[in-house]
Amino acid sequence: MNEPTVITGMTVKDIRFPTSLEKQGSDAMHIAPNFSCAYVVIQTDTDLEGHGNAFTEGRGTDVVCYAITSMQKKVIGRKLSDIFNNFGTYWREITNDDQTRWIGPEKGVTHLATAAIINALWDLWAKMEGKPLWKLLVDMDAEQLVNTIDFTYMSDALTRDEALEKDMLESGHPSYTTSCGWLGYSDERITEEVTKAIAGGTTRFKMKVGKDLQDDIRRAKMFRELIGYDKIWCVDANQKWDVDEAIDWMKALAPYKPLWIEEPTSPDDILGHLKIAQALNPLGIAVATGEMCQNRVMFKQFLQANALQYCQIDACRLGGVNECIAVYLMAAKFDIPVCPHAGGVGLCELVQHYSLFDYIRCSGTLEKNRMTEYAEHLHEHMLDPVTIKDGNYMPPKVAGFIVGIKPESLRDYEYPVGPAWQKMFDQGLFERE
Amino acid sequence: MNEPTVITGMTVKDIRFPTSLEKQGSDAMHIAPNFSCAYVVIQTDTDLEGHGNAFTEGRGTDVVCYAITSMQKKVIGRKLSDIFNNFGTYWREITNDDQTRWIGPEKGVTHLATAAIINALWDLWAKMEGKPLWKLLVDMDAEQLVNTIDFTYMSDALTRDEALEKDMLESGHPSYTTSCGWLGYSDERITEEVTKAIAGGTTRFKMKVGKDLQDDIRRAKMFRELIGYDKIWCVDANQKWDVDEAIDWMKALAPYKPLWIEEPTSPDDILGHLKIAQALNPLGIAVATGEMCQNRVMFKQFLQANALQYCQIDACRLGGVNECIAVYLMAAKFDIPVCPHAGGVGLCELVQHYSLFDYIRCSGTLEKNRMTEYAEHLHEHMLDPVTIKDGNYMPPKVAGFIVGIKPESLRDYEYPVGPAWQKMFDQGLFERE
Repeated sequence: MNEPTVITGMTVKDIRFPTSLEKQGSDAMHIAPNFSCAYVVIQTDTDLEGHGNAFTEGRGTDVVCYAITSMQKKVIGRKLSDIFNNFGTYWREITNDDQTRWIGPEKGVTHLATAAIINALWDLWAKMEGKPLWKLLVDMDAEQLVNTIDFTYMSDALTRDEALEKDMLESGHPSYTTSCGWLGYSDERITEEVTKAIAGGTTRFKMKVGKDLQDDIRRAKMFRELIGYDKIWCVDANQKWDVDEAIDWMKALAPYKPLWIEEPTSPDDILGHLKIAQALNPLGIAVATGEMCQNRVMFKQFLQANALQYCQIDACRLGGVNECIAVYLMAAKFDIPVCPHAGGVGLCELVQHYSLFDYIRCSGTLEKNRMTEYAEHLHEHMLDPVTIKDGNYMPPKVAGFIVGIKPESLRDYEYPVGPAWQKMFDQGLFERE
Repeated sequence: MNEPTVITGMTVKDIRFPTSLEKQGSDAMHIAPNFSCAYVVIQTDTDLEGHGNAFTEGRGTDVVCYAITSMQKKVIGRKLSDIFNNFGTYWREITNDDQTRWIGPEKGVTHLATAAIINALWDLWAKMEGKPLWKLLVDMDAEQLVNTIDFTYMSDALTRDEALEKDMLESGHPSYTTSCGWLGYSDERITEEVTKAIAGGTTRFKMKVGKDLQDDIRRAKMFRELIGYDKIWCVDANQKWDVDEAIDWMKALAPYKPLWIEEPTSPDDILGHLKIAQALNPLGIAVATGEMCQNRVMFKQFLQANALQYCQIDACRLGGVNECIAVYLMAAKFDIPVCPHAGGVGLCELVQHYSLFDYIRCSGTLEKNRMTEYAEHLHEHMLDPVTIKDGNYMPPKVAGFIVGIKPESLRDYEYPVGPAWQKMFDQGLFERE
């Protein structure tokens, strides 16, 4: 097959899955999310396509799709060699158009749109090279890797030269599961899910908290009785609390020994997380955050201030591979483990590549509880779903990054026109828009 | 006339002005902006309408318009008494929809859309009360005022009770002008503008910097020769530098005694601004930022860390009046002057209300160089343009907030269909989209 040389087209679809029906994904702030994505396909002058997605939670996905479409001019018609040879420069062109940056910059809707497009380009590049993304990354020489990064606003924490010096090592990567502890699950469902997970070899768990303190204490006790104290147990408040409230609430949950409290307060509050960490670290509780942390500048400060002890990047909120790698390099310098956020549409499929890259080439270790989030829903829609064995992510072998969502899923779940949505509207499960 | 009781409709238009033709608004990062806005009109069951805008810089305005349209469901059909009696709660409903918040939260496109809608509601409310917004605000009792604020994530810096205790005093409010120092202006144009401004009574100036150090030094010297050292002179880099670069660059400009360096680096970098302030404050240079500061949580940290000495809120980037007032109250507690950003489409018209509120009801002082930015372009399109007298903003008397953009301007400059744009496309001044 000929190598593709130029981008000839870009399409985007609003894909939504009705996860709210079973309360999958439910937490203290997101009562009834429908896990969704804005799904991008980049076409070339050959049959090869790059696929990318911005994970979303239902309403608003169309806004992200609209933003992606508005960026077509910067994508269609471009030579692939121009992009891949100067990827850091191209990334900056996408994120810092002199008129458009006002409506960001590098955050919210425009940055989600950036992530979908940039990740589709990496998916295409990995397919051109016939490698899964993690292998493309670990095979690059240091200069090539660093050339994909925009170092703007980072130089007080990490310079290009320091990044070049970084070079590192290889196996299946540890996961932890979120699937047992959704806030909307009944005690019976939790017991069933935990029993199933332990039978499958899982030793690391997370539970949602933040709705009701007494109920959280009761559920914490139940969870620890189910899994014992020899396994890892984390809790996640999804930004529910003010700063002092987070400290008081977590002191009450301290007897159940959570490894971390995730998203105790606003994702924008670096100094707030620092205050929480200073109060809770002496009790053995770490602070984790990052799935709604908007860009490398915010992560830089969380790391500089030691305001987090676990760094949880989101593969679709940061501006794609280029910016995720930048954060991994900074985290390695500050010796903070990255435990990427996953569970959303395609997120597990994406972040497994980062965890392999981290172990082989960046931190070079599994110490400090390095592990990757896992949730078991929606993988049936993926062309190359993740494989979990004894609680570990097994390295993907298929060329590409997200690789793709199945054509029949894209057809059935396109919102609101897909047959699956039309049927659910007819059944009265959701209001027709 | 009957009082309106319910919202019956909401329209949005993409309005753009070709300011890039004269390099108005040009700076180190925004080479050729076309000052624009997403313009919202809220209709009621009477003839009374509320008008609001999200200021933008050209490309991407359509994305904000799309986001505003997508929020119609939360606006149309609502009773006005339900909104105005519980405005803090309504604000939170708009900003924290459990599915949509993922694509923000409270930042970027979705927050600009929020600002336009929320400010249109305040414009409507002020018109219903027959008062300019500043008068509506200063006439409220403390409890009413505080009820418009969402205190979520703020309680570690300012509680509802502390806010209630705040209560304060009255004249024309000082302005400073940005109109003489756009980066794209020639020396001749700068000299002409400065001479004109001084003749009009202006004593406070700002100049754009950050493109070329030697040229900045030359222009600084020229500017000080034109205005002398008895007047206030500020500089603005519009986020051009990395942290250490900002410090070095400003040390070279220190001999020209700038009052502040504005936006030296990323608007997200609280700790970076702190480092810059610690290096430059001993040289008599303050740090100012805020026009791209996304929400109250970020301002809270800038204030807590003393990372800024001048707080520059933007009336259309924060989520409207409710959130702007929250930041004013926090700034008063930390004794930091608020010098609001203005100059964009409608921004001068909006922020003058805040400055009056600040002086009469909040800080109660003009000390610490409290002043409001002013730029002289585009006021001819406003139904109630600002009045500047001897360098002071004179209190507006017409009921409302933005009050409105002239119908003929809305017709002519609607993008891309308006006759003014069609003519400029025909003339080859801009590329037809």
